[in-house]
Amino acid sequence: MLVAPDVARLEAYVPGEQPASRSVVKLNTNENPYPPSPECAKALSSFDAASLRRYPDPVFSRLRRLVGKIHSVSPERVFVGNGSDEILSLAAKAFAWEGRRIGSLDPSYSLYKTIAAIRGVEWTADMRSRRISLFFWTNPNAPTGEYVEPSVIASYARKSKGVVLVDEAYADFARGNAMALAAAKDNRNIIVMRTLSKSYSLAGLKVGYAVGPEELISALYRIKDSYNIDAVAQTLAIAALSDRKWMRKNAAKIKKTRRAFTLALEKRGWDVVPSEANFVFARPPAPFKAAELKECLKANGVYVRHFPGPLTGERLRISIGTDGEMNRLLAVLDSLRS
Amino acid sequence: MLVAPDVARLEAYVPGEQPASRSVVKLNTNENPYPPSPECAKALSSFDAASLRRYPDPVFSRLRRLVGKIHSVSPERVFVGNGSDEILSLAAKAFAWEGRRIGSLDPSYSLYKTIAAIRGVEWTADMRSRRISLFFWTNPNAPTGEYVEPSVIASYARKSKGVVLVDEAYADFARGNAMALAAAKDNRNIIVMRTLSKSYSLAGLKVGYAVGPEELISALYRIKDSYNIDAVAQTLAIAALSDRKWMRKNAAKIKKTRRAFTLALEKRGWDVVPSEANFVFARPPAPFKAAELKECLKANGVYVRHFPGPLTGERLRISIGTDGEMNRLLAVLDSLRS
Repeated sequence: MLVAPDVARLEAYVPGEQPASRSVVKLNTNENPYPPSPECAKALSSFDAASLRRYPDPVFSRLRRLVGKIHSVSPERVFVGNGSDEILSLAAKAFAWEGRRIGSLDPSYSLYKTIAAIRGVEWTADMRSRRISLFFWTNPNAPTGEYVEPSVIASYARKSKGVVLVDEAYADFARGNAMALAAAKDNRNIIVMRTLSKSYSLAGLKVGYAVGPEELISALYRIKDSYNIDAVAQTLAIAALSDRKWMRKNAAKIKKTRRAFTLALEKRGWDVVPSEANFVFARPPAPFKAAELKECLKANGVYVRHFPGPLTGERLRISIGTDGEMNRLLAVLDSLRS
Repeated sequence: MLVAPDVARLEAYVPGEQPASRSVVKLNTNENPYPPSPECAKALSSFDAASLRRYPDPVFSRLRRLVGKIHSVSPERVFVGNGSDEILSLAAKAFAWEGRRIGSLDPSYSLYKTIAAIRGVEWTADMRSRRISLFFWTNPNAPTGEYVEPSVIASYARKSKGVVLVDEAYADFARGNAMALAAAKDNRNIIVMRTLSKSYSLAGLKVGYAVGPEELISALYRIKDSYNIDAVAQTLAIAALSDRKWMRKNAAKIKKTRRAFTLALEKRGWDVVPSEANFVFARPPAPFKAAELKECLKANGVYVRHFPGPLTGERLRISIGTDGEMNRLLAVLDSLRS
């Protein structure tokens, strides 16, 4: 036996399809339909390739300082990961161990269960479990788009003996966020995580960050790979975060499209969960079945996501693209009905 | 208690210093003194920043195919990591588990012990231990620069019940390598790992790859983060690997400098381990003491690496830079003696 028994048993997390064709309408992985800030293009074209012979700053000092400044915390309370996925894996290593459990909402990001399995601990959706040492609270949640007020999270965290990691991948599309809880001086156990993949239009770059109490953040530094963020990614992340006006403008456009698209679906008889994210989670009216409809849309060049299972199987998760993309999806739907 | 007990006990791996000043002679982290291939600069300046809004190819298909072509294996036998450090961590997860051990040469890359500690398994330098399920064999070894013939590794692997991961970070500076063992059809348990950080001058990018039996490589895919290599890194890695002539030319220059520098040190009474890497591991003559000499050199703007401890403390590890950089180091040494 060469492979660890728990790894041999694992099934890999399946990311959404990435079709090679550029002509499809791709609404299956919550990518931003707008490009990143022009500052990123400038940073790329002025990047000195010769400097790549040197190792990057292992603790990304400039990037941390900028994140700290944005959220009014010291750089010691900021961690940066190779995508927020890396932060989730490191958090599992640091804050979950034998006999403890990793908790999350249900349904939620399906990777959490995989991460618990890789860490070799039980996963639970029972928030009251006293063995939870790490709770992943996605807010707004995926794939539902539902948002809870930070006060609800604060109240849970006060009672919890473990770490509460609030995954705010979609917070820039929501009416609020829990960053003030993470930044609070007396915060003991709340980490708030953000990614540049969605609102900053940098899914291709894979940079996420976390803000929390210094004790917890320093544990992540102790177990991270020596140089986890490459030099180009550090530079582009700084460029993107320096132009938050651009990000906010795109987020506002996406929210506007979300409202219009939600109404358009409701007019067609869909049940749409009120969304605070850059996607909607919606149940098509009879005689449509979600799984079949997904394939039908795909055959017509429109990709959306379907998560089989009792809690999610009746619905489709549809990312919010441009108005034009949403209209193309609606046109395909209308052609299927007629 | 919020942090896992084994993580709370850990000390972080300390990477070599990265001085901000560009005027120092930096011979402490085995960086290549020459820039990466001009193909990398071209790839950077023609990279479409707008495309970063999309997720990267999660399984880096083009990059894998290229690596497979270079080493005459199918893409299914190629894994790519966010630096070879990520591959080491994933290998520890996949091939070591409770009751088993991680082995390595001693002295060797100090990160191996940290990785075993993070994985929660024992580390050993006793190659005969029957509980070793993963052996990291660095060849050429660091910090010594010593090289063993692949037949020695093959003979160990035949007897081993575990996985033998040959860390060939420095192989392009050596007279041979074990890639043929990894690529062999009947290879059961040998993985050979390379990095683009040294010979390809891309330390700032953090891309490493591994070649091995499909069963072992697929285990790494099962536990990796969904998108572990960002889109820019995939593109630049392809650019660098497409211009191996550039890499070989620089490696040849470094080997020439290594020979001259070794002779120059020996002339000054140093004991130099015969090196097949882009550094030498050398003991200064009395009255010099390695630890103090390192500080002395630093005060004179020359950074080298010192690893305290009984096996390594008497020597300095000096990266091979340009002829000019090595001469500056020699000039400082001569000024200290006089």
